[in-house]
Amino acid sequence: MTDIAAMLNAYPAELGRFDDDAFVRCVEECLNCAQACTACADACLAESERADLARCISATLTCADVCEVTMRVVSRHTGYDRAVVSALIAACVETCRACYDECRKHALEHEHCRICADACHRCVHACQQLLNSVS
Amino acid sequence: MTDIAAMLNAYPAELGRFDDDAFVRCVEECLNCAQACTACADACLAESERADLARCISATLTCADVCEVTMRVVSRHTGYDRAVVSALIAACVETCRACYDECRKHALEHEHCRICADACHRCVHACQQLLNSVS
Amino acid sequence: MTDIAAMLNAYPAELGRFDDDAFVRCVEECLNCAQACTACADACLAESERADLARCISATLTCADVCEVTMRVVSRHTGYDRAVVSALIAACVETCRACYDECRKHALEHEHCRICADACHRCVHACQQLLNSVS
Amino acid sequence: MTDIAAMLNAYPAELGRFDDDAFVRCVEECLNCAQACTACADACLAESERADLARCISATLTCADVCEVTMRVVSRHTGYDRAVVSALIAACVETCRACYDECRKHALEHEHCRICADACHRCVHACQQLLNSVS
Repeated sequence: MTDIAAMLNAYPAELGRFDDDAFVRCVEECLNCAQACTACADACLAESERADLARCISATLTCADVCEVTMRVVSRHTGYDRAVVSALIAACVETCRACYDECRKHALEHEHCRICADACHRCVHACQQLLNSVS
Repeated sequence: MTDIAAMLNAYPAELGRFDDDAFVRCVEECLNCAQACTACADACLAESERADLARCISATLTCADVCEVTMRVVSRHTGYDRAVVSALIAACVETCRACYDECRKHALEHEHCRICADACHRCVHACQQLLNSVS
Repeated sequence: MTDIAAMLNAYPAELGRFDDDAFVRCVEECLNCAQACTACADACLAESERADLARCISATLTCADVCEVTMRVVSRHTGYDRAVVSALIAACVETCRACYDECRKHALEHEHCRICADACHRCVHACQQLLNSVS
Repeated sequence: MTDIAAMLNAYPAELGRFDDDAFVRCVEECLNCAQACTACADACLAESERADLARCISATLTCADVCEVTMRVVSRHTGYDRAVVSALIAACVETCRACYDECRKHALEHEHCRICADACHRCVHACQQLLNSVS
C-alpha cells in the first residue's frame, strides 16, 4: 500500500547494509507510531481527566518527533554513516519504550493509549530488528 | 494496517468536522508522500547525473517537510481552528503540486521520481478531498 | 550571534528575491517561536490548572511545527518556487495568529504564555514583512 | 535576544536536573545548527561542483533533523526521562560530529561549509556540556 519497498528497490546505488524486510517494517512502524503518538497526545488533551495525563502527553509528543526523524535518517542511504544510524535507532528504541511505559498505564481506561502503546511496542521491535541487521 | 482509523475512532470528544474516510486517506497519503520524498531526494543524490537534479532534490525536501506537518496538524482535533487547518492543507497542495511537476520531468529516467510523482499526485487529491469535506 | 546572515551571504548563486534583513528576521523569529511554543506547551502541562489549557497546548504544538517548517522552506533558495513559499508563509502567519490569540488569554496568569504570545506576534510581523518583500 | 532563558525561568515546576546556562546554550546551538545545516544543504545544491557534495548534503540534512528534535526533547521538562534525553543528546553529538567531518572537508572551497562545520562543532560541545550536567 505504501511506496516504501518500491522506493528502496529504486535506489540507484548499492545498499546491502541491512535486511530489506527489516528496513521496510521499521519505516512503516516509525510512520505509524509518529501518527499514533500525535493522535494520542491530542486525544489525551480531550479527556476529562487530562490533568492526570501530562506525563503521557509529553512522552507521546517526544515519541512522535523521534519516530519521524528516525524514519528520515534510516531512509537516507547516500553517505550512510553507521554510527549515526545506530545512535538514532537506539534513541528511538529508548523513546518508544518510555512512551509505551506511559501509555500502557492508561490502556484500560483509554483506547487511544492502548493502540498507541501497541504501536510503540511494535516500533521498538522493528527498530531492534533493523539495528540487528545493520552492518 | 495502520492505526489511523482506530485512533480517530478512539478520540473521546466530538469530531464531525470532516469526512472520516477523507481524513484517513489524507493522513495516509501525507505519511507515504513524506517518506517517498525523503527517499527520492536521497536516491537523486546517488544518481550519476545528480548535478541536474538540484531543483528536484529541493522540491522533494520541502514536500517531505510540509507533508509531515500537515499530517500532524490535521491529526489534532482538540482546539481545532478551521483557518489554520485550511491554510496548511492549501500549502500542502501547493507543495505537492510543485514536487509532482519536478519529479514527473524525470519519471522516465528515474523510477524513484516516477513513484514520488505518483505519491505527490495522490497526496494532492487526498488533501483536496479533505479540504472539501472540512466545515 | 546566529549564522543566518552569514549563511545567506555564502549562498553561491543569485538570490535577490526578497529583502535580506526581512529574511534574517523571519528565520530568527521562526526559530525562536518554535522553541518558545515547544516550551510553552511543556510549561502548560506543568501548571496546576493544566486541564483548562488544552486548547493553548494544541495551538502551541501546531505553531512550533509550522514555524520550523517555514524556517526550512524559506531557507531553501535553490529551486525557489514563489507559490510554495508564499503559501507556507501565509500558513505560518495564520498559525502564529491563532497561537497568539490562545496564549494572550493566559498571559496575565502565566508568564510563559505572555512570552510565547509576544514571540508569536513578532513572528507574524516578520513573516508578513518577508512576504511583502518576496517577488 | 531569544526567549530561551526567559521560558526556562517561567517553567512553573521544579527543574534542577541540569545547569541552566548549559541548557540555554545547547538549545541555542541546536537551533542555529539546524538552520545552518538546512542552508548548507541548499547552498551545496547551488554549487557548480554539487555532484561531489552528495555525502555532505546528506549529512547536513540529517544533522538539521536531529538538531531540531534534540532542541524539542531537551525543551520538555514535564515527564522528564533521563534515558530518553541522554540517548537523544548522544545521537545529536554523533550526528553533528559526522556532519562536521563532512563539512570541514569542503571548508576551504565553500564558506557555507566552513560556517556549518563551526556550527556543528559548537553544537557538539554544547550538547556534551548539557549531557555532563544532566543528573
